[in-house]
Amino acid sequence: MSIAIISPGRDVSFWIKTFNEADPDIDIQVFPDIRDKDSVELVILWQHPKGILKEFPNLKLICSMGAGVDHILSDPEIPRSLPITRIVDPGLTIPMTNYVVMAVLNFHRQLYRYQSNQRKKIWDMSNPELKVNVGVMGVGALGSDVIEKLKILGFSVFGFGNSPKSNIDFPYFYGDELTQFLSKVNLIICMLPLTPKTENILNLDFFRKCNKGTYIINVARGNHLVEEDLLTAIDEGHVSGAFLDVYRKEPLPVDHPFWNVEEITLTPHIASVTNPGSAIPQIIENYKRLKSNTPLMNQINPILGY
Amino acid sequence: MSIAIISPGRDVSFWIKTFNEADPDIDIQVFPDIRDKDSVELVILWQHPKGILKEFPNLKLICSMGAGVDHILSDPEIPRSLPITRIVDPGLTIPMTNYVVMAVLNFHRQLYRYQSNQRKKIWDMSNPELKVNVGVMGVGALGSDVIEKLKILGFSVFGFGNSPKSNIDFPYFYGDELTQFLSKVNLIICMLPLTPKTENILNLDFFRKCNKGTYIINVARGNHLVEEDLLTAIDEGHVSGAFLDVYRKEPLPVDHPFWNVEEITLTPHIASVTNPGSAIPQIIENYKRLKSNTPLMNQINPILGY
Repeated sequence: MSIAIISPGRDVSFWIKTFNEADPDIDIQVFPDIRDKDSVELVILWQHPKGILKEFPNLKLICSMGAGVDHILSDPEIPRSLPITRIVDPGLTIPMTNYVVMAVLNFHRQLYRYQSNQRKKIWDMSNPELKVNVGVMGVGALGSDVIEKLKILGFSVFGFGNSPKSNIDFPYFYGDELTQFLSKVNLIICMLPLTPKTENILNLDFFRKCNKGTYIINVARGNHLVEEDLLTAIDEGHVSGAFLDVYRKEPLPVDHPFWNVEEITLTPHIASVTNPGSAIPQIIENYKRLKSNTPLMNQINPILGY
Repeated sequence: MSIAIISPGRDVSFWIKTFNEADPDIDIQVFPDIRDKDSVELVILWQHPKGILKEFPNLKLICSMGAGVDHILSDPEIPRSLPITRIVDPGLTIPMTNYVVMAVLNFHRQLYRYQSNQRKKIWDMSNPELKVNVGVMGVGALGSDVIEKLKILGFSVFGFGNSPKSNIDFPYFYGDELTQFLSKVNLIICMLPLTPKTENILNLDFFRKCNKGTYIINVARGNHLVEEDLLTAIDEGHVSGAFLDVYRKEPLPVDHPFWNVEEITLTPHIASVTNPGSAIPQIIENYKRLKSNTPLMNQINPILGY
């Protein structure tokens, strides 16, 4: 068994160490130093060079290093017959939810206003809370946890997704009910998977359908957001500001206008970082399942894209 | 029945309107325009002029306008024989908890570091979370709710109070176990009642017993904190920063050093603001109970001070 990790620019020493501790017999090869392409049966990918997978003739399984697989499916040369799995890590949920709750509360309790007042030495007790109705786009494992926790904290929360849902305890809209969903909320959290359907969904047309002053939180993928449209929507007043963790190009280029926009708070893609200690056992388990011909864990549907 | 509202400098028009809607026969007099002191049987107080209560010969009940009664008990001339009640308002709990959770998450997820990096256009993904063990001082109605919500969000939480507690599901310390409590935590939330025992409890001796880098949140009373000691403790590194809503003098004077300290985030006593719509029915109910000689709601113990 040989595993190739293809994740250019990332320090994977902890991944290798954790694999070795889990099973010292596993042979790990790390791109670009692949010694023996023929022996590789499993690849672990994050932002791999497009087209590289055709160099591995005996590949049996493609594993995403994280929760998303858009970086894999966007490669037109991946072998379509191979199964693809992603990481479903409860350890991803807590940091993601806490990050989102932080961004929601800072808007609701107007942290940025108080920070500005502190700089100006202004004591203003008026209107200490903004009324917030939260809209969560994408109600999978991560989105559902955000909804549950925000409800516990007392917020009204509305969900939006691609398909009908049952057994949910929050108002839910899907498909062509987007306009109706947007009319209910003034804070939107994008937690959608990135698919051809959802790419560029946060665009000027979308923002103009929002209630005036709606706040945007994007913790999904940079390609959900048409970045120049966000700036226009802030100028027009449809959007009051944004809390962003992901960008079309990362690291965010130093000449990008977002750095200087007072209404935008930026973080460097740290909302939820895959913990190798939780991810690696899932990948090993899936390799075993592949060998024993039992159903894989967390296999994605390449048509749906998640 | 005549009620006097004594709350200098506060706009009480909404209080009067709500009383009138609840019972148009109630006579309300607002300090300093008290027409008929003899008729006043109930006073509603917030930061009253000390000694003024001896001018009301027929007083039967003293009601605090908010959750705290320290502003009443600190007047040596209040008639000691009269019952004192405070507001216990579930409507106070949600804003208080959300404010505290915001302050905790901003520390845990290092919002201020990312804001500073944004200003400098620095993309730094390293160490996206600080490990946080939370200590809540004061585990009454408000403190217990904070503990419950922080536990749901995944935090380890420790409680500290004045007296032993049973039926709690978190590690709890009391009395002379303060040092032991402080050794467990690196974020402290002060939610104590203000009493002679707790006044000035957040002092240099306290801070020097904290783990290095401990963060302080004060949402209780300004007099819990020795303000110059906080600045010393930040300089010494025992305390990494603070999120403050209350001060020894409010509004915070413009020449106060806190305004300019980068490690301190200030808000103008807005964590949780008494909602007259919830408070007034409690006061009316207590007046009825007084007349019918049935036990009062939310009567405080003047020895304990809460």
